[in-house]
Amino acid sequence: MTAPTTTGRDAVREAVHDSARRARVASRTLAQLTTAQKDAALHAAADALLAAKEAILAANAEDIEIAKAGGTAESLLDRLRLTGARVDGIASGLRQVAGLPDPVGDVVRGSTLPNGLEIRQVRVPLGVVGMVYEARPNVTVDAFGLALKSGNAALLRGSSSAAKSNAALVRVLREALQAQGLPADAVQLLPSEDRSSVTHLIQARGLVDVVIPRGGAGLINAVVRDAQVPTIETGTGNCHVFVHKDADLDMAESILINAKTRRPSVCNTAETVLIDRAIADVAVPRMIKALEDKGVTIHGDLPGLVPATDTDWADEYLSLDIALKVVDDLDAAVEHINQWGTGHTEAIVTADLKAAREFTARVDAAAVMVNASTAFTDGEQFGFGAEIGISTQKLHARGPMGLPELTSTKWIVWGDGQIRPV
Amino acid sequence: MTAPTTTGRDAVREAVHDSARRARVASRTLAQLTTAQKDAALHAAADALLAAKEAILAANAEDIEIAKAGGTAESLLDRLRLTGARVDGIASGLRQVAGLPDPVGDVVRGSTLPNGLEIRQVRVPLGVVGMVYEARPNVTVDAFGLALKSGNAALLRGSSSAAKSNAALVRVLREALQAQGLPADAVQLLPSEDRSSVTHLIQARGLVDVVIPRGGAGLINAVVRDAQVPTIETGTGNCHVFVHKDADLDMAESILINAKTRRPSVCNTAETVLIDRAIADVAVPRMIKALEDKGVTIHGDLPGLVPATDTDWADEYLSLDIALKVVDDLDAAVEHINQWGTGHTEAIVTADLKAAREFTARVDAAAVMVNASTAFTDGEQFGFGAEIGISTQKLHARGPMGLPELTSTKWIVWGDGQIRPV
Repeated sequence: MTAPTTTGRDAVREAVHDSARRARVASRTLAQLTTAQKDAALHAAADALLAAKEAILAANAEDIEIAKAGGTAESLLDRLRLTGARVDGIASGLRQVAGLPDPVGDVVRGSTLPNGLEIRQVRVPLGVVGMVYEARPNVTVDAFGLALKSGNAALLRGSSSAAKSNAALVRVLREALQAQGLPADAVQLLPSEDRSSVTHLIQARGLVDVVIPRGGAGLINAVVRDAQVPTIETGTGNCHVFVHKDADLDMAESILINAKTRRPSVCNTAETVLIDRAIADVAVPRMIKALEDKGVTIHGDLPGLVPATDTDWADEYLSLDIALKVVDDLDAAVEHINQWGTGHTEAIVTADLKAAREFTARVDAAAVMVNASTAFTDGEQFGFGAEIGISTQKLHARGPMGLPELTSTKWIVWGDGQIRPV
Repeated sequence: MTAPTTTGRDAVREAVHDSARRARVASRTLAQLTTAQKDAALHAAADALLAAKEAILAANAEDIEIAKAGGTAESLLDRLRLTGARVDGIASGLRQVAGLPDPVGDVVRGSTLPNGLEIRQVRVPLGVVGMVYEARPNVTVDAFGLALKSGNAALLRGSSSAAKSNAALVRVLREALQAQGLPADAVQLLPSEDRSSVTHLIQARGLVDVVIPRGGAGLINAVVRDAQVPTIETGTGNCHVFVHKDADLDMAESILINAKTRRPSVCNTAETVLIDRAIADVAVPRMIKALEDKGVTIHGDLPGLVPATDTDWADEYLSLDIALKVVDDLDAAVEHINQWGTGHTEAIVTADLKAAREFTARVDAAAVMVNASTAFTDGEQFGFGAEIGISTQKLHARGPMGLPELTSTKWIVWGDGQIRPV
């Protein structure tokens, strides 16, 4: 018998499916671990990363070399680069996850039915979790840690530009698991040479329980379009700050500048400022000046601004740019946000309670802020200790996702022979 | 200017998208309604259904006529048929939903952060919910009622065989809403002439928040394969009863017979019985006799049974058939179930606490029963008052879905000018 000829694409498919099947087997063991076993494994993995620091940095240096030769910009090189201090940070991230409460086994609700059946809904791991992400190698370890603590096996599909770094990190993690008597297949790196491994991962229905893409709109759209496995959309944030007519303008300015300039490249940054027409005479020049003083380019339909088109209302700049619009009133602000927003984070600045209540009730987003910066939408800020991403979809999880969002539930029912009447 | 030629398929697409856009507008109003307003609308809709009983029955008679002429089997005709009593039942179902607690506005969790920000996670409606379902016209009204109570607009894609019945029902519901000053577009019926309306519905990303298919494996698979909108898989149930060596055989027999014969066509019916080898000598003949006495055909690899293939382990019979297998021990039972089950409901009969704990911990399903019939996996039995379906996926909802499962959440954050340090 001759073996069938395998095309490259089929080989990738087989590699992904094989990893997923091994992850499923590992996940059965992970689901039964005690919290103490998982925490010990996380600390052991942290120790192993520190012990292997030199090999990790050497692998990363190779990625950096290749990226430089390919003409990668310095800002991207910085995302890709590991240093001794960064490896220390990655390892201590694992220890931090070890310190978080274990969601598995939590009883979400329960009751005793009239017929004596005792029912309870208990948190259980999702099973096999796929992650697709871009350059930063630290995500490899973060995702492993969160997945392990929540009892899930992780299939990691990182960026090809970080292939050697990711391979070195995952090798260390797998050896650490094995040394603890746990299945190495709890964490596996998928091939990253081309996009086909992403496609095979998101179409591995039955083999993979959920895929979480972390990256730009292009990746998210491709995943949502082609996925047959349930996915959680993360990260696209076209966030607004609405300066209401009853806003304290000092507060509005401080919130706006923080929301726009703290870290312009992250998803909770403000991309549009809406200003109430009733205070436009005073507020518009003041906000423009404050933004321009910080080097922000302002797009809008007022004289002196970069002319805005619909693209400006729709897009995330992820840079020191912002769109500015004067709106007739709170109604118009809500309407603009619900039309153009991505459902991430929206903020109002106002001293008026009725306006605040109406804005929070009517704006359709994962997080709605009253008199606070959009930058607070973040798992660590919310007190979750760590975050796997920020969901902008409505199903399963919305907003920052911590450990409980990496679980499902199971109904456990205890009886003594109950049968259901016809 | 000449209008572009519109093919039939494009026209269906436009009709679905247009409905979805109008549903979105309606959903903004629904999300702000008080519980009292929604309950009043549900009672008004129930009254309207009773008042329109004759027109509804006349429309249903037309569907029945067409189905008969097409040679539809009597069992299917019965699912399709409405009677005065059934319309009464449908109306009182709406009143029952009016009596359930409103999940919208529930605070799921919250805290005050060290910087003084008050954060709380509040239940909000999903928005626009699509339902795809088969013959029964009562689902049209049930889905409307659950969607309305949870503040969602419903896009209903029923069976073409129930088209006239569904149209009559939805007309009554829309008029009742309008008479209450609520948007009629809170409930809309999508065209059902061909499958393309399903495709357009499940690909209307951004317009529809979630689609819940209710029906056979073919429908569910098509939806999961082609959907770009998040979906919730429901209803496929290949459920097992495992008779452990320490089972009380009277109890095992009673549970098995109830799980198989109470209503063989529903998803929580037992499709395979697994018997522990240690008690096979006694238990196998006894279970076979009990099943045969109830007219059940038994498939298996023992002499005297209908020979079984892998198909028998995999499929839902949804009829008076069952597969029977002798397994070596609890391990083998768990392995068989995790290999062949659909993650719906699995039961063990045992007097041994350790076996019960191990089975519930290791079996991967929405519901795991100890000494109870699989038939209990049901929203009403679990005390939810009503159910929109039984989810067999792990994301968002697992097991019977009641009103809270038709909601998402929103983080509402109150501050007094907080900004995030760099």
